[in-house]
Amino acid sequence: MTLGKGITVDSLIWIDGRLVDPHAFHVSALDRGFTLADGLFETMRIYGARVFRLDEHLGRLIDACRTMRIEAPDGLDAAVDGAVLAATRAGLNDARLRLTVTLGIGTAGLAPPPGSMPTVVVTIHQLAPRDDAAYEHGISASVATTRLNERSATTGVKTLAYTDMVLALAEARDAGMDDAILLDTQDHLAEATASNLFVVSAGTLLTPPLSCGVLPGITRSVVLECAHALGIPAKTGELVTNDLLQAEEAFLTNSVREIVPLVRVTESAIGSGRPGPTTRALMERYASLVRELAT
Amino acid sequence: MTLGKGITVDSLIWIDGRLVDPHAFHVSALDRGFTLADGLFETMRIYGARVFRLDEHLGRLIDACRTMRIEAPDGLDAAVDGAVLAATRAGLNDARLRLTVTLGIGTAGLAPPPGSMPTVVVTIHQLAPRDDAAYEHGISASVATTRLNERSATTGVKTLAYTDMVLALAEARDAGMDDAILLDTQDHLAEATASNLFVVSAGTLLTPPLSCGVLPGITRSVVLECAHALGIPAKTGELVTNDLLQAEEAFLTNSVREIVPLVRVTESAIGSGRPGPTTRALMERYASLVRELAT
Repeated sequence: MTLGKGITVDSLIWIDGRLVDPHAFHVSALDRGFTLADGLFETMRIYGARVFRLDEHLGRLIDACRTMRIEAPDGLDAAVDGAVLAATRAGLNDARLRLTVTLGIGTAGLAPPPGSMPTVVVTIHQLAPRDDAAYEHGISASVATTRLNERSATTGVKTLAYTDMVLALAEARDAGMDDAILLDTQDHLAEATASNLFVVSAGTLLTPPLSCGVLPGITRSVVLECAHALGIPAKTGELVTNDLLQAEEAFLTNSVREIVPLVRVTESAIGSGRPGPTTRALMERYASLVRELAT
Repeated sequence: MTLGKGITVDSLIWIDGRLVDPHAFHVSALDRGFTLADGLFETMRIYGARVFRLDEHLGRLIDACRTMRIEAPDGLDAAVDGAVLAATRAGLNDARLRLTVTLGIGTAGLAPPPGSMPTVVVTIHQLAPRDDAAYEHGISASVATTRLNERSATTGVKTLAYTDMVLALAEARDAGMDDAILLDTQDHLAEATASNLFVVSAGTLLTPPLSCGVLPGITRSVVLECAHALGIPAKTGELVTNDLLQAEEAFLTNSVREIVPLVRVTESAIGSGRPGPTTRALMERYASLVRELAT
């Protein structure tokens, strides 16, 4: 992307219907998104000039606003459209889009002020060239020491409160792993730091239910649709670590990375230690949905 | 506080060694404090021109930075001093001070960028006149439906991730209660939404241990010191809801509200339903420490 004065950037920030200087300040230090994580976000994937599953992402965000008692602002779709158009014009055509909505400016304390105006920010980052090795050979994960709290009021809601996931990923990287899988407080497998988890066991595709505190991932839903279309038996079901270790295949899903084969948990290979046939079939089906989007 | 152009405000924001316009923007939308709650804060009380227990607050913040892998910036004490001086000059003499430190500007994803520069913000708000009724008659609380996760990597760390506490308080207020008490996932009493909890039972002062996921409150420590000075038996100990319902007295503590008697849990009075003698003795002792600070 080239802006005036010969500056090239790979990202843009869209606020209040216009591009803003990415190096400026955009948010009040009193914004409750900054002070208390009192906000929500969605991360979406842009292919060409199109956002994959935009309506589902906006629907989930609006549900999340209701949970967090934030009045969902009008025109979120227009904000996304405006930002995507600007990104397309700037040549950011394979990108991640983040839509953040916060309660807006607060005062002191936890109680929100009356009549706050939500803050809406869209950021778009060009994606680095795809890491083919991750998709061809799979990635590794450790099991995080931090637990996911399935009895939190914000369970399954994509709030800004990501500290546990940030730490879990950092610890996994320290251990030489690519990602971390979190267990809930009942020792059920839940999700990875920014992805849902799937395993293939006895030919059936399984993913943890929402009762284990997982985010209701848009890609998770799409993968279940893909399985249905391919005639692969698929269901939600509680899983423990041993189920993952003994699985035939496993993979992680999110909107940006799509489907990434998970082939190793710490020292143990999953299945053959290579991406399996079910994972590959789902990756191909997902890719075909992406191709359909572009046409 | 009077600024130029006849504008009177009751708060100020101090960044990079100077007062900034409170109505301006101060933070990047890419700041990880805004995007991922990747930061810490401390709330302190200013009496006159002095911050109560500043060193303890700074020590806890630096410990928290270590946990969150944020390089604690130099000169946090100077930032606080500068902001307090500005507040004093502006006539904000009974105020709450919030010191926020975030990892700084990020890119996309959960992994922090190399070489980030922490963001440091000090905000000071003049306190509203003290709500004497709360201190004379006590306050009420409900037991939150959301659970505190004592097995989180950020348990006991004052990160920006306050969504659960925001919701717990909102639900309590809906139910006509002043605050909410959270249980940990093992059904132990933990803390209120922004306060530590104490009960008096059989003449002994008890507060939940850090293993129940509570914040190691500075005021909590001061209250334990006060109890020692007054010869009141005091210890940490696991408590369940019934212990609170059957307690002789209970109170909540934090740096801003100090010690607030808790006299009712939903429909049940605690003890006599009025602030008890141990609570009053500790309140008086705490007030004497505050008076000492001013001299």
